[in-house]
Amino acid sequence: MRTTVGIIGGGPAGLLLARLLHRAGVGCVVLEIRTREYVEHRQRAGMLEQGTVNALREAGAADRLNAEGLVHHGIELRFDRERHRIDFPTLTGGRTVTIYAQTEIVKDLVALQLADGPPLLFEARALGVEDAESERPVVRFVREGREETLTCDWVVGCDGFHGVAREAIPAAVSRTYAHDHPYAWLGILAEVPPSCEELIYARGERGFALHSMRSPSVSRLYLQVPVGTELEEWPDDRIWDELAARFAIDADWTLERGPVTSRSVTPMRSYVHEPMRHGRLLLAGDAAHIVPPTGAKGLNLAVSDVRILGRALTAWCSTGDTQLIDRYSELCLSRVWQATRFSYDMTKMLHAQPDGDAFDQRMQLARLRRITASRHAAAELAANYTGLPLPEWVPR
Amino acid sequence: MRTTVGIIGGGPAGLLLARLLHRAGVGCVVLEIRTREYVEHRQRAGMLEQGTVNALREAGAADRLNAEGLVHHGIELRFDRERHRIDFPTLTGGRTVTIYAQTEIVKDLVALQLADGPPLLFEARALGVEDAESERPVVRFVREGREETLTCDWVVGCDGFHGVAREAIPAAVSRTYAHDHPYAWLGILAEVPPSCEELIYARGERGFALHSMRSPSVSRLYLQVPVGTELEEWPDDRIWDELAARFAIDADWTLERGPVTSRSVTPMRSYVHEPMRHGRLLLAGDAAHIVPPTGAKGLNLAVSDVRILGRALTAWCSTGDTQLIDRYSELCLSRVWQATRFSYDMTKMLHAQPDGDAFDQRMQLARLRRITASRHAAAELAANYTGLPLPEWVPR
Repeated sequence: MRTTVGIIGGGPAGLLLARLLHRAGVGCVVLEIRTREYVEHRQRAGMLEQGTVNALREAGAADRLNAEGLVHHGIELRFDRERHRIDFPTLTGGRTVTIYAQTEIVKDLVALQLADGPPLLFEARALGVEDAESERPVVRFVREGREETLTCDWVVGCDGFHGVAREAIPAAVSRTYAHDHPYAWLGILAEVPPSCEELIYARGERGFALHSMRSPSVSRLYLQVPVGTELEEWPDDRIWDELAARFAIDADWTLERGPVTSRSVTPMRSYVHEPMRHGRLLLAGDAAHIVPPTGAKGLNLAVSDVRILGRALTAWCSTGDTQLIDRYSELCLSRVWQATRFSYDMTKMLHAQPDGDAFDQRMQLARLRRITASRHAAAELAANYTGLPLPEWVPR
Repeated sequence: MRTTVGIIGGGPAGLLLARLLHRAGVGCVVLEIRTREYVEHRQRAGMLEQGTVNALREAGAADRLNAEGLVHHGIELRFDRERHRIDFPTLTGGRTVTIYAQTEIVKDLVALQLADGPPLLFEARALGVEDAESERPVVRFVREGREETLTCDWVVGCDGFHGVAREAIPAAVSRTYAHDHPYAWLGILAEVPPSCEELIYARGERGFALHSMRSPSVSRLYLQVPVGTELEEWPDDRIWDELAARFAIDADWTLERGPVTSRSVTPMRSYVHEPMRHGRLLLAGDAAHIVPPTGAKGLNLAVSDVRILGRALTAWCSTGDTQLIDRYSELCLSRVWQATRFSYDMTKMLHAQPDGDAFDQRMQLARLRRITASRHAAAELAANYTGLPLPEWVPR
């Protein structure tokens, strides 16, 4: 097979890139290792920055998002039995975020892609990228038991942290940066209307808890748990009791319980790979960087990588101009490091630190109190949370 | 001896409190363990927040400060061979800081105190505070080889981190919070005009360096060094070479060298004792809390404690009202924790971390870049650096 842009990975990054390229008339093929059923039901993030919503609209993939997405104007910080609201529009000059699950974005993009898009091959397992330093990089992959090749002008690795694309970058030019946080998240989906209208980030000595939602009838809740936690340790009653204890604030507030339909334990890792380009291979999203879920930056970072990449590849295709591709890694990484910093700080500020002491606890409270006392500190949180702008150098 | 307020410690906190009380007609006695010569030449901080300058003016102790203090409108952050200025008035609505050494403040206050103030006893070594829970607390002290007592209505411990006042608070009610930073500062005074007009905070892989000044002809410079560093390891040439390397930026900038007149190594510690009041004993300044010197909060915190305490003791003396004294600890500690947070964050952002890795270094750079890119982040730094206001509850 032959195409202009070979995309490894049919998650939101790969699918959105394919959509943007298709609309710009750039040929591409998407290889996805899993089944359609699998990718459409993989539970992931659900908080979209304004820029992510705009990108999906720009890609013509926002009909259902526009109809069903829940626009949120703030979050609640809950600590020391107090509640503090961070109002995004006031602090950012009008910005909001939208609650719409990654699974739904994937469904929307898959449907579009299968209807009129370029090839999207499910159960196509990429084995590796070859000749990345040449002008004809090749993706070797296996489908229906047969090994095939996809010869491209450019290969984009959107195949996540465990994907094969990053492996094609020689160790001699790779720089990796990592931090493992000493806790995990136990996440549940529950068939119960959310007990709040906006997300609640709760910090306490029992550990962090997050109340989020998928829709007006489905709650998404998370508990900080120790690394190595097994789901069997957490029957539903224990989960609800612990959530109730961590959100407890006063008699007026009750956590509504309901049937749990999904459970998972997620590790918390910060990871950045530099550079994000090697020859004709480009990385986007989790293939290049991972953030802990606090602050919900993962999906949004993947989308901003792809926004830059869509423009860069389109420019190359229409005029042969490589300026934007040449700056791709640098432009993405400046934003990636800011999101990494923000996610790390939110994580450290809100989680009980297993190796922390009373001093660290007081510092967490001092940070939270400062955010509630200082408009600048609150505005910094709001600006990062709703999403920093793309670098100025990127054409709009 | 008998007085209304017995003050242990004749550093800036104790002397300023005595001055404020004297002007309000409240009797007090200051016991200082050292000689006048010693306290007037103890090299310490030299950066005064606007509120500290105001407090010294209010105390009638600012004639020389007004004439000789150097008003600074910003600082420079230097990292990655770049220079970034933080402009305080623009970011804070007009606030500045003033460079004027603690030694000079002490000289000014000692002179006033000896001229017309209440008793200031040098070489008076406090042994302990007794009956702090009664209405007549007593300070036992030794002077000229004889043990004496000072019976008071209130005792104030301004006797620093190693003082005896804090020991009078029973362990059962004390809560202490501490963090030792894994590096120290080697500080020098040099007879050479500063190579800069404002302070330079330089972060690099060789370690942190700070260029400050005492006057237009005397430079004050600091180097991050390992814990346990001995001055003998650092002959003057080595100090200057290392400073030059850490400040190096381009051919246009040179570090001027001159005779070194003072050298010292300072540990870096964060420490808070709660509460700051027990019965009729009140703690102020280093007796209750220590910050690492990055950001120069130590002296300024001591002065803000004393500003609140001056009002509280004056109110009690004139009307018997204990409202402000009853809230003294809480009012001070809210500000103390914010300064502790700020000093800790400045320290962590700027120092090479002996136990840090490449990820931590990138996070430092991401923090610094954010401050230079975001007006809110810069304004937060400027607001904290120039000094947070006293709690609203404190009468002006």
